[in-house]
Amino acid sequence: MPTEPPPVGTFAGRHVLAELGGVEAAVLDDEPFLRTTVARTLAASNATVCEVISHRFQPQGVTVLALLAESHASIHTYPEIGTAFVDVFTCGDRADPERAVRLLAESLGATLDAMSTVERGPQPGRPVP
Amino acid sequence: MPTEPPPVGTFAGRHVLAELGGVEAAVLDDEPFLRTTVARTLAASNATVCEVISHRFQPQGVTVLALLAESHASIHTYPEIGTAFVDVFTCGDRADPERAVRLLAESLGATLDAMSTVERGPQPGRPVP
Repeated sequence: MPTEPPPVGTFAGRHVLAELGGVEAAVLDDEPFLRTTVARTLAASNATVCEVISHRFQPQGVTVLALLAESHASIHTYPEIGTAFVDVFTCGDRADPERAVRLLAESLGATLDAMSTVERGPQPGRPVP
Repeated sequence: MPTEPPPVGTFAGRHVLAELGGVEAAVLDDEPFLRTTVARTLAASNATVCEVISHRFQPQGVTVLALLAESHASIHTYPEIGTAFVDVFTCGDRADPERAVRLLAESLGATLDAMSTVERGPQPGRPVP
């Protein structure tokens, strides 16, 4: 049986875009730490992490992507200037993407230099286990 | 030698958020096709794909994430209503994220129901191989 589409105008997803600053270079170049921290802060925000991948660039910088039951999250780090781009996109009401960004900033010892939330939809929420 | 930070206000990244519509359900539930199509359209837009992961949800719907040298891209599909969320985030001037979204929409036979571009930065571009 197909899922019933939501009423037009129903809000369905929040996509948070953020920029972190003031982080120690060594932290932003530590791929295992970043993988663990991204997964932990997403879980603490009620997101369901299906898979995490990462890549360390030369000469520096790390990208971590998390595939979520609710959509996805990413961090792209720039150790040379102590900053990172973050996005957390979640559908449904269970996960809190802004909380995920704040927890991640706190865990990295970062200032939250910018954060904006784009409401996306209408779409049905992905069923969460 | 550390990379020189860009001048304050330098534009460094484009993050394109889009919503596709009118797509056949079978297309939006075809995980191998979506993986291949996402990778192909990104490459055709001068992005460098480092890794692609995907997940097919129950009862339907697919997420594909691409880790790029330039940042990342994603598609989250909703076969039950023929729609998908897309985002393509690229740093530097080489890749064209809006072109990637348009090519992806065309490859899926989709209407491009919404597209917006968020300029992010200042940050240095990631070196592209």
